[in-house]
Amino acid sequence: MFNALKEKVLEANLLLPKYDLVTFTWGNVSEIDRVRGVVAIKPSGVDYDVMTVNDIVVVDLTGKVVEGTMNPSSDTATHLELYKAFPALGGIVHTHSRHGTIWAQAGLDIPALGTTHADYFYGDIPCTRSLTPREIDNDYEKNTGLVIVEEFTRRDIDPSAVPSAIIAGHAPFSWGKDAFDAVHNAVVLEEVAAMALSTRSLNSGIRIQQELSDKHYFRKHGANAYYGQK
Amino acid sequence: MFNALKEKVLEANLLLPKYDLVTFTWGNVSEIDRVRGVVAIKPSGVDYDVMTVNDIVVVDLTGKVVEGTMNPSSDTATHLELYKAFPALGGIVHTHSRHGTIWAQAGLDIPALGTTHADYFYGDIPCTRSLTPREIDNDYEKNTGLVIVEEFTRRDIDPSAVPSAIIAGHAPFSWGKDAFDAVHNAVVLEEVAAMALSTRSLNSGIRIQQELSDKHYFRKHGANAYYGQK
Amino acid sequence: MFNALKEKVLEANLLLPKYDLVTFTWGNVSEIDRVRGVVAIKPSGVDYDVMTVNDIVVVDLTGKVVEGTMNPSSDTATHLELYKAFPALGGIVHTHSRHGTIWAQAGLDIPALGTTHADYFYGDIPCTRSLTPREIDNDYEKNTGLVIVEEFTRRDIDPSAVPSAIIAGHAPFSWGKDAFDAVHNAVVLEEVAAMALSTRSLNSGIRIQQELSDKHYFRKHGANAYYGQK
Amino acid sequence: MFNALKEKVLEANLLLPKYDLVTFTWGNVSEIDRVRGVVAIKPSGVDYDVMTVNDIVVVDLTGKVVEGTMNPSSDTATHLELYKAFPALGGIVHTHSRHGTIWAQAGLDIPALGTTHADYFYGDIPCTRSLTPREIDNDYEKNTGLVIVEEFTRRDIDPSAVPSAIIAGHAPFSWGKDAFDAVHNAVVLEEVAAMALSTRSLNSGIRIQQELSDKHYFRKHGANAYYGQK
Repeated sequence: MFNALKEKVLEANLLLPKYDLVTFTWGNVSEIDRVRGVVAIKPSGVDYDVMTVNDIVVVDLTGKVVEGTMNPSSDTATHLELYKAFPALGGIVHTHSRHGTIWAQAGLDIPALGTTHADYFYGDIPCTRSLTPREIDNDYEKNTGLVIVEEFTRRDIDPSAVPSAIIAGHAPFSWGKDAFDAVHNAVVLEEVAAMALSTRSLNSGIRIQQELSDKHYFRKHGANAYYGQK
Repeated sequence: MFNALKEKVLEANLLLPKYDLVTFTWGNVSEIDRVRGVVAIKPSGVDYDVMTVNDIVVVDLTGKVVEGTMNPSSDTATHLELYKAFPALGGIVHTHSRHGTIWAQAGLDIPALGTTHADYFYGDIPCTRSLTPREIDNDYEKNTGLVIVEEFTRRDIDPSAVPSAIIAGHAPFSWGKDAFDAVHNAVVLEEVAAMALSTRSLNSGIRIQQELSDKHYFRKHGANAYYGQK
Repeated sequence: MFNALKEKVLEANLLLPKYDLVTFTWGNVSEIDRVRGVVAIKPSGVDYDVMTVNDIVVVDLTGKVVEGTMNPSSDTATHLELYKAFPALGGIVHTHSRHGTIWAQAGLDIPALGTTHADYFYGDIPCTRSLTPREIDNDYEKNTGLVIVEEFTRRDIDPSAVPSAIIAGHAPFSWGKDAFDAVHNAVVLEEVAAMALSTRSLNSGIRIQQELSDKHYFRKHGANAYYGQK
Repeated sequence: MFNALKEKVLEANLLLPKYDLVTFTWGNVSEIDRVRGVVAIKPSGVDYDVMTVNDIVVVDLTGKVVEGTMNPSSDTATHLELYKAFPALGGIVHTHSRHGTIWAQAGLDIPALGTTHADYFYGDIPCTRSLTPREIDNDYEKNTGLVIVEEFTRRDIDPSAVPSAIIAGHAPFSWGKDAFDAVHNAVVLEEVAAMALSTRSLNSGIRIQQELSDKHYFRKHGANAYYGQK
């Protein structure tokens, strides 16, 4: 019933090893079909090199499996909270990519330090607060989604303008218009995280100029964008 | 006589170059058959790309060669001490993987800084004390095993919950239910060692929350695990 | 009409992923035909693995498209300013290669610390000043070229002797006798940028001896060069 | 006349890109035939992927070309000084491998910090003093060899026990019983240089225990070695 969606989600998941974003099964991609109210997502703990389209699990927005025989990713509840809170999201990816995870473990935002970052992210990539012991004990994966939503709300960040977050002590989540766009943003997050790490070791106080950030972001995004082909 | 065991140990050894854990012949994997009281292990100083199943050496728990014409790995005595002291171990791997070795050379535990670590290791990966000159001079490889056992005993660590150690001034040992599981843990050790190195350069005092470590460890391990497929 | 030029520019662009200088489409190479007064350059936002010779855009020195149906790289105006100011340039490359970008983001020159650098660059690779808000708002890409020219003029640097610059908060530009030579220099810049980063972490005050820099530069360049074949 | 020697030197040179020790043509390997008093070496500035056995140049110990039509490596005079001063050397390799070069640029010995180092190098890998302006101006490449010899003599180091040196401001030289052994040691140097860099960032005062260094060096080298096969 959901074959096209599942094919696309399979293909997007297979980009994770291609772009060196994952070790073993440490990552998952999903895409939502908002008309039919379902999300297709990677099965939990299945190797990328044996995964087939039939392993992809389709759940509704309460997390109930609609199609598929495998358990969905243990992070499914996080994906669902993000889809519910951020209507612009079409695809979500979670990885433990090395440099994104380093910033998450350090509990620090990935700072906007150059135009590579500004081409995709309008400002710092926020690091959430730590979850409380109670939030960890009960509905941990759901609360992981909620703490991202809380951080974007508190700081008044548009999730389309900053399509990623990192969870304190954990790792990144990225998103986009669809599953492929989400993976694209996860690749960028990993690269800018690596660059920021060494930039700060050379010059601890540096930041990008606001005007330069604006210029690069808006020449690629929005009504007056002029990067790329029509 | 021990062909199935040797085939598996050969295959597990060949995963070391696949996962970029070794330069030249700097690593070895073994597996124990506890019923028959034998351990199959890589031969000493043989290149991975010419190794065949007949090169794998089978020794008994005193180190006597039971099958094979090659010298067993010079680290065989270390493996044997670990198998004797830790009954849950089915496979052991030793490498000089870059980041694990960096922490060993620094003489520091690999600290638990995030959920990537907590998914596999329940707490810091301990670094042993240095061996005494006498322990180095006599039965060095056996004493290398004993000093790991001493460290786990002294700190009251369950080797199944922390399936790796690093030897001060030397490099990591990892283990698992069998040879493949041991290699899997060696891959994880290398990745979390790399992440911890840069995390500490960004935030020198950071640690993972205990509750978050508990959550991630126990959602993958033990009676209430819910990660992966049934 | 410009097929040979376009073929060469296509081939030079395809070297960027080969040498790991780019993520996605984050780079562009051009070459000038000074007799005919045209520049061939990569189209904007097109993937390297689908690009064909017909996608390469030919513009005149005012930026007007002379051949091709795609939009030229959004950095075309920067290339044109460099070609106009520096008559010795035959090819130009722009990338966001990781270590070159790290120095650009830090706002620091890539310092000459060894003979690897001296073999190709006679002195530090300069980092430009930041552009003013007005320079960013109007004709940003053109001003990016002008600020490089300004830096070389102010410091009295010969662009043939230091065939690269880094833009503060942005990334490197490299150039050479033709498109291939420019890519060659971009590869060297990335390597010496990586080396300089860690060299400075070991020894913060170190610099190359001037005599050693002279020796290595002049044994490869100029009238008395003796490196390579005749 | 020297075909077997040239074939071996070609093959050893082709290991440099295989082991990621070189960018472009930045490396060269030679081997000496002490009976016939000749050295075969890579031609200067020729790409590894087009090099054939006929490009390998054979010179006598004064540097005169005995066979071949290409210019020998510009570093030939350095190789010759090392062969003349150190009779045990059969092969020599020079590269600008990243981490070895970082230590050379920093002007610091690569310190012995663990058993990976001790398995191959008995003590620190020495960094030479800087050459004087006069030594740079006249017979630079010959003086590069002499300053290595001076360093080993002054510190009373056996070049067979420490088969590498790094030149201040420049890069490493490694050597061995033949060309392949020299390349092997160059690979090890690069790995221990990378490990030492990060080890020192974690623990700035650390060194390997002398007894552990002795144990590892002598279990692989000398009369009582027991590593590997007979």
